[in-house]
Amino acid sequence: MSSSQFSSTPTSLVDNLLAGNRRALARTITLVENDGAEAHDALAALYRRTGQAHIVGVTGSPGTGKSTLVNALAKAYRQRGYTVGIVAVDPTSPFTGGALLGDRVRMRDLSGDPGIFIRSMATRGSLGGLAQATADVILALDAAGFQRILVETVGVGQAEVDIASTAHSTVVVEAPGMGDEVQAIKAGVLEIADILAVNKADREGADKTVTALHMVLGSGGPSLRQVQHHGRLMEAGLPAQSRDESWTPPIIKTVALRDQGVAELLEAIEQHRDYLQTSGELQRREEDRARTALIHILQAAVLRRLQENVPAQQLQQLVADVASRELDPYSVAEHLLPAVLSAS
Amino acid sequence: MSSSQFSSTPTSLVDNLLAGNRRALARTITLVENDGAEAHDALAALYRRTGQAHIVGVTGSPGTGKSTLVNALAKAYRQRGYTVGIVAVDPTSPFTGGALLGDRVRMRDLSGDPGIFIRSMATRGSLGGLAQATADVILALDAAGFQRILVETVGVGQAEVDIASTAHSTVVVEAPGMGDEVQAIKAGVLEIADILAVNKADREGADKTVTALHMVLGSGGPSLRQVQHHGRLMEAGLPAQSRDESWTPPIIKTVALRDQGVAELLEAIEQHRDYLQTSGELQRREEDRARTALIHILQAAVLRRLQENVPAQQLQQLVADVASRELDPYSVAEHLLPAVLSAS
Repeated sequence: MSSSQFSSTPTSLVDNLLAGNRRALARTITLVENDGAEAHDALAALYRRTGQAHIVGVTGSPGTGKSTLVNALAKAYRQRGYTVGIVAVDPTSPFTGGALLGDRVRMRDLSGDPGIFIRSMATRGSLGGLAQATADVILALDAAGFQRILVETVGVGQAEVDIASTAHSTVVVEAPGMGDEVQAIKAGVLEIADILAVNKADREGADKTVTALHMVLGSGGPSLRQVQHHGRLMEAGLPAQSRDESWTPPIIKTVALRDQGVAELLEAIEQHRDYLQTSGELQRREEDRARTALIHILQAAVLRRLQENVPAQQLQQLVADVASRELDPYSVAEHLLPAVLSAS
Repeated sequence: MSSSQFSSTPTSLVDNLLAGNRRALARTITLVENDGAEAHDALAALYRRTGQAHIVGVTGSPGTGKSTLVNALAKAYRQRGYTVGIVAVDPTSPFTGGALLGDRVRMRDLSGDPGIFIRSMATRGSLGGLAQATADVILALDAAGFQRILVETVGVGQAEVDIASTAHSTVVVEAPGMGDEVQAIKAGVLEIADILAVNKADREGADKTVTALHMVLGSGGPSLRQVQHHGRLMEAGLPAQSRDESWTPPIIKTVALRDQGVAELLEAIEQHRDYLQTSGELQRREEDRARTALIHILQAAVLRRLQENVPAQQLQQLVADVASRELDPYSVAEHLLPAVLSAS
């Protein structure tokens, strides 16, 4: 199949975005968040201009100070002349103001710098919508020429793990005194860590946390990412190639509030980037990202067709019949499939 | 549409499960976890025998002691003569032994009691697979006659929120001293709480946590669940009916390790159950559950068809072309859709 089979219509919006127009970028992101057909055309047109940015996932439990760390990292990158996009993903609490508060702090610190673009992602539906929307926003920032894209997620959940695992380099942030160490590590996302940051390292217990992390990493830690990720793709019927596991995640102590250790963290990220490029691992991760994107886009298309092709009232009646146990959802899904699948 | 349009073939496995055979239940759950066509037939046959159990989601951050609380709650229910199913969902760490450790502790405490059935769910793929598998296991336990089903999830992530929100009653577990209160609440899943448990209430700071929770609930908390849930279903094109919000989540102090407060927690759950039944809210939640199940089953069917209808080598080539930016994933998805949609 040749690429000419797929034609897309670049709009002036896309041209303006590619020319570095901030408002065109913001408008494109809004399009993406509204998820219409227009967004898909724009994303398809932008896609081939992507692949330049290095995407850094930063994830960790609440209270580890990862927002502050992301800000400090962004400033450090700016000092070295890199442009930086920040995507803050907070899927759980769109209403308690968390994301907005973080934004306000960021705006004070980083606003007015044209080399920085910040976007918060709120909840976007439960069905993989957030992961896909985040991937799309990253894509727009990449096409707009931002060289480093920092994606901040609240760790622990599967959705966050998925989002973080689409990054090129994943930084897992821990902090001392977050309760029982074993629990923190169990719940953590060590499996996906390329780099570990122990933030708030001026607090009591920092060395204990570092030691605990070393122990977990030493006891077969590095191969876990491979196994888990592989398992997930297998389940989706899309086995990934196995990964080269010669990278050992470094553990870096930081105090983000005082910019301590931030330069070392930046250095570790850049070293990981070099490693990905020279080892061929980058190619493998890009293929994983492509697989995930394909699946998400297909699933979204199915939901859209359900909406378009099945009258709301009919759907409501079927739902009521399932709820009352008159029908079972498996048979109803089978019954709906032809309607979902027919072209609209 | 009449229910007679949907025929299913009850197998002897299903008959045995419905007759209360434990091994048939275990085998059905294994079928469900392997997610084959056989599983769908079994689930379709079981479905109409469900709807009797009260499903209780128990969610909270790591370190809140929610596993211990679930065990204590199960024992309390047993003392009152109820049969209890426990489903422990730990999607993040299938390899670090968390789920297994929890199981071993449980086995020691609760094993040998035919009125209890325990099942752990490990990672099941990133694409909504875990939520659906959990729902299916709950369904099997319900059909097998377990009267109370406790579903334990690690809170924070979207997947866990989804799983918990399919329960009839959702208990959110907090604990004192889990770091910064505001952060804990921000990251928490208060929006979905029907009941709040402050576990480890013998620790310093318990009253502070209770006060903080009261403040958050007081400042418009109760309506959040409605807004968020509604928003999610809207996004999926399946607007739910608006909810009656006359229930105010009680806050209950517990010390699960010493069985303190557990009877009160059980009482609160039973009161919430009564509230759901008398207010008509139960019917609404059942319809939400039915909608979610339908969507998950449809999405899984699409993935299965992708696997069946597109040769692995062709898929791999497309993925490689997307990774190298020769093709964009939106156009490829459009191209794949007819193949995915054709009957296999």
